[in-house]
Amino acid sequence: MDGISGSIEAQQQSGLAARLVIRAARHDGPTAGLAPGHVQGNLAILPRDLAADFLRFCHLNPKPCPVIGLSEPGSPHIPALGADLDIRTDLPRYRVWRDGALVAEPTDIRDLWRDDLVAFVIGCSFSFEQALLDDGIPLRHIARGDNVAMWRTSIPTNAAGPFSGPMVVSMRPLKAADAIRAIQITSRFPAVHGAPVHLGRPDLIGITDITRPDYGDPVAIMDDEVPVFWACGVTPQAVIAAVKPAFAITHAPGCMLVTDRRNSQMAAL
Amino acid sequence: MDGISGSIEAQQQSGLAARLVIRAARHDGPTAGLAPGHVQGNLAILPRDLAADFLRFCHLNPKPCPVIGLSEPGSPHIPALGADLDIRTDLPRYRVWRDGALVAEPTDIRDLWRDDLVAFVIGCSFSFEQALLDDGIPLRHIARGDNVAMWRTSIPTNAAGPFSGPMVVSMRPLKAADAIRAIQITSRFPAVHGAPVHLGRPDLIGITDITRPDYGDPVAIMDDEVPVFWACGVTPQAVIAAVKPAFAITHAPGCMLVTDRRNSQMAAL
Repeated sequence: MDGISGSIEAQQQSGLAARLVIRAARHDGPTAGLAPGHVQGNLAILPRDLAADFLRFCHLNPKPCPVIGLSEPGSPHIPALGADLDIRTDLPRYRVWRDGALVAEPTDIRDLWRDDLVAFVIGCSFSFEQALLDDGIPLRHIARGDNVAMWRTSIPTNAAGPFSGPMVVSMRPLKAADAIRAIQITSRFPAVHGAPVHLGRPDLIGITDITRPDYGDPVAIMDDEVPVFWACGVTPQAVIAAVKPAFAITHAPGCMLVTDRRNSQMAAL
Repeated sequence: MDGISGSIEAQQQSGLAARLVIRAARHDGPTAGLAPGHVQGNLAILPRDLAADFLRFCHLNPKPCPVIGLSEPGSPHIPALGADLDIRTDLPRYRVWRDGALVAEPTDIRDLWRDDLVAFVIGCSFSFEQALLDDGIPLRHIARGDNVAMWRTSIPTNAAGPFSGPMVVSMRPLKAADAIRAIQITSRFPAVHGAPVHLGRPDLIGITDITRPDYGDPVAIMDDEVPVFWACGVTPQAVIAAVKPAFAITHAPGCMLVTDRRNSQMAAL
């Protein structure tokens, strides 16, 4: 499905149209740029016994782990995010984990589906980044085609069952006036990480080297910029990885679930 | 009217009740603590010929100069802020200016009133500070009983007629998480200066010595705090002073107009 990004077709593409292309195995890479304006989400699939604790974990940590969709145990459907959505076929690529080890990266998980699995879709910063760009706030990592810079912090999450660990944050360097505006804009989007959790000195949240992220690409901070830190959807991924569940499935990096929800529908106001 | 602040009577006092006490010449000092929960405002009275340009100036600079009430030329009443309000008697103390010089500080201006005068009431930070305190955000200058620290900046205002000059800002040192929350809260109050105009490095807005304010009292910034800067109602006062109008009347410092509007009614959301 080369060339879909940026084409007039893509600009008008619905979430459903993107999923149908992915479901037909005609797109198996990153979803950035697909179905512009539509919400994309992180995926985590866990067996029912762990799922209850994980849902409680998400509830206790809404900023890093905003659940925007949840399946019935055993059901691969999440009608709230798309009427025909099938979580087993509608992502370009998955990661399958056994006892904490990555064992496969399939493009389809129908053969792995079980009637005790629960699918979680967790909000992603794509939605609020689009709102920032639409307001004219430049985002350096996007301008450079990089991944956002992310760090493990000294901010603890609230534990639930086996799930616990540090909050992971993403950082975007902004001029002060843009930082203030970005706080206003992202406050409208509690379902996709919401307002920042910190700004200014990185050491106050346990980041010792702001030039070397723990995940993603380094990003320069100019002399007139302040680093602004948002809770990040890598937090639940890192927390799940630490538990080393007997079985779990996640999206492959960048290969998100494209939904029928529009980014603007995520706004609280 | 000693002891009204902090008493049960004061807690339940209406704006009208406060104005009646002031009108009866039973209170001639600062209004902080009177009619808790009610909006207080800065006063500027100008002859009609200057008033048109000043209103345009306020319109072009809504963050430092939010007009919350405006009289008809020659009328001392502003019903929107209080049904019986009389701007000539209802402030504890006034300042009378002739050709830019302070010539009197009366407690009543009935004998100075003219049929070409226009009264402007401009929103004041008391309203948003109360909202911050109500949310549990500590404000050091209030805890210390000080005036807020203020500086002239390199941020220009938008000129209108003879009115122009630098924006004056107030600064409150806050922990990062409180700064983010304070941006959310004050964004709800565009009529009382709204969101901050800057945070972080003072030199980026032309403040060379953060330990020595141009107005108000110095305030310490702790190691884990960021200075947060709001547009300040001293801006219009400074701009008027620079014009040296033939005749003008303002409130005396701290002796504000107490209105019938509640602080919460100033919230946009």
